[in-house]
Amino acid sequence: MELPNQAPAATLVFRTLLAHGPLTRAEIGRRTGLSSGAVTKAATPLLDDGWIAELGRPAGDRMTGRPATLIAVRAERAGFLGVKVTADELIGVRTDLTATSLAARRAELDSRDVGSVVRAIGAMVEKLVSASGTHEPEVHGLGVTISGDVDRQTGAVHHSPFLNWQGVPLAQLVEEATGLPTVIENDVRALTVAEQWFGAGAEVRSFALVTIGAGIGCGLSIDGHLVAGAHGVSGEIGHLPIGGGDRVCTCGNVGCVEAIASTQAIVEQVRQATGDPRLSIGQAVRLAHNGDPAANEVFARAGHVLGLAIASVANLVGPERIIISGEGVGSYDLFAEQIRQTFAAQAFGAAAECELIVRPLPFEEWARGGAAVAARELVTPERRSRGPKSLPAKSRN
Amino acid sequence: MELPNQAPAATLVFRTLLAHGPLTRAEIGRRTGLSSGAVTKAATPLLDDGWIAELGRPAGDRMTGRPATLIAVRAERAGFLGVKVTADELIGVRTDLTATSLAARRAELDSRDVGSVVRAIGAMVEKLVSASGTHEPEVHGLGVTISGDVDRQTGAVHHSPFLNWQGVPLAQLVEEATGLPTVIENDVRALTVAEQWFGAGAEVRSFALVTIGAGIGCGLSIDGHLVAGAHGVSGEIGHLPIGGGDRVCTCGNVGCVEAIASTQAIVEQVRQATGDPRLSIGQAVRLAHNGDPAANEVFARAGHVLGLAIASVANLVGPERIIISGEGVGSYDLFAEQIRQTFAAQAFGAAAECELIVRPLPFEEWARGGAAVAARELVTPERRSRGPKSLPAKSRN
Ligand SMILES: [Zn+2]
Ligand SMILES: [Zn+2]
Repeated sequence: MELPNQAPAATLVFRTLLAHGPLTRAEIGRRTGLSSGAVTKAATPLLDDGWIAELGRPAGDRMTGRPATLIAVRAERAGFLGVKVTADELIGVRTDLTATSLAARRAELDSRDVGSVVRAIGAMVEKLVSASGTHEPEVHGLGVTISGDVDRQTGAVHHSPFLNWQGVPLAQLVEEATGLPTVIENDVRALTVAEQWFGAGAEVRSFALVTIGAGIGCGLSIDGHLVAGAHGVSGEIGHLPIGGGDRVCTCGNVGCVEAIASTQAIVEQVRQATGDPRLSIGQAVRLAHNGDPAANEVFARAGHVLGLAIASVANLVGPERIIISGEGVGSYDLFAEQIRQTFAAQAFGAAAECELIVRPLPFEEWARGGAAVAARELVTPERRSRGPKSLPAKSRN
Repeated sequence: MELPNQAPAATLVFRTLLAHGPLTRAEIGRRTGLSSGAVTKAATPLLDDGWIAELGRPAGDRMTGRPATLIAVRAERAGFLGVKVTADELIGVRTDLTATSLAARRAELDSRDVGSVVRAIGAMVEKLVSASGTHEPEVHGLGVTISGDVDRQTGAVHHSPFLNWQGVPLAQLVEEATGLPTVIENDVRALTVAEQWFGAGAEVRSFALVTIGAGIGCGLSIDGHLVAGAHGVSGEIGHLPIGGGDRVCTCGNVGCVEAIASTQAIVEQVRQATGDPRLSIGQAVRLAHNGDPAANEVFARAGHVLGLAIASVANLVGPERIIISGEGVGSYDLFAEQIRQTFAAQAFGAAAECELIVRPLPFEEWARGGAAVAARELVTPERRSRGPKSLPAKSRN
């Protein structure tokens, strides 16, 4: 699927409206640096083909006079699917062009075997597509997100520890199974894209997204660019060695943030402190809420280490805002005070002005990240060209 | 001082040649995305005014046929000064347009008082300018660099702990004292600019420069952009809290990298270990070179913490290359093995592929950073417009 006009100016106008719209023509010109004539020229084919519209006018109508008229992306012009693969289940969403969820599903995984997971993705895609109503947008692409070292450009999962996968050409396999143009991305980066385009990152020049949960990750967006890492690795705050010497991380090192503050690490520490080897994370949270000193100490230590990690991001990269999210945010009240205290003490000088915001993202939001990555393909020049392209949703029913 | 043509295309061509030249026209087109006609149009006024030349042709000659001819910046077209202010002395250089040093000077500071420092900068500028020969390029601008929180855009030093300055409008004061267009910058960032444009950062897409010495700093360049930090702070690896709990940093926190691995921290630790309260850094280095176990342990611990810090940069930002430099590199043999070992162990997955290179930069190089920042002003759109502009060097004799 392609925009009608792949000229850089048209892509720039569309991208600007996608991230910041609705905007007046004057504002589009200011943000893109294009002249008013160039904005009109770039916008015309987008209007004609229904990708954007003047607010209050029918799609396809030409942009005329009235320079203060707001122009917006037509969210209903295209649909996307996002699927997040975890170790145990798939979470899928169908969204419109602005990654707004129209339908969501979950499905347990029988096996972590590549073939089974690809078949399960195929089945979920069928259900998400066939559930769409008559007036809902055609599905134009699919984004699959997964924890680990994922190469969006080649479509390969280099390494995913949770699934125990190495060198899996996942985009190609999923494309073959679903017939949909597919892009894959690391789950934290995909969520960062969703925040950058359609979330709490849209109005700032730079931000970091820190996710707390089974893993502790970080996405970075600087001047509108996702920091990808020259060697495919970036945002690995889970392995910053700031946690002290008594706990060993899954990566083999001592004192990593994940070794203190991941869900599993918290459970282990509360089990140790209470002497109950079968205690669950839910029970650990309840103990802490009931004022158990040992459990509270574990959560406070996790909060301290998370505060150090967040301050490290601020000191090193200096984002305007840091968004704290992930499953772990459900029990954020247990860390919050310690995170803020430690952050304030460790942030260097003006880095303490970095705004911390906590944003609970339900698990469906992770799948939205996939849809955002798929939608971004519309305006991102470096696309893979491989396999079948564009299958209208209805033809799959 | 201005380039003859401030059109974006001309600036882009000049900037590309400055960073990557000499290049053929075809290569300029490839790197800038400009058509061959647009390259020629942009280059013509630059050729006419002698900023660039075809190799092997006299300046001012028009670019004609022969598409494989190499085009280069004429380094002799403009001169720049760079001055680095330390707590004890000034270091100054006069350079050509590519920040190649033509003359260097040092001068002790009598006082850290703002007025005295500005007068000392004025005197150094006089000497550097009057020492220039007849055939040397006119001085077009001055860059002053200083450790601390420095705002290039407003020209103010917000805070410089070494000098104990707060809110000093240094660029304006120096402009008034010297008559030269002046830009100020944090010293580590200026050195990062020098490496990015004219050094070990020129051929990579992203790099970090880690400086070891009295302070421990880091400059980051991602996709050709210097990471400045939304709140003015970035690259503060000296205050990553990865050093363990026994030493307090000048910033008030426990376990900062600087509290273990700065020159002063090393001296203190070797004094403690040897019981000699007057030992110097030179003596500490000699002890370690002579195999004193206590001194060796202090350097090994510093190397370990530096390795953790460098791995943290690789894990978080993922640069293609990390350049290790600074005064401390003079005794790098004492840390080197430990830095590499710890880096290899702590780098996460493919982050270990990040190339570490050690680059001794003599103190004059720090001053070259100022000249590089001043030269960059030629092609950086956001310039202050304040005070007198452009005074030909000879008129000051
Ligand atoms: Zn780890
Ligand atoms: Zn510190």
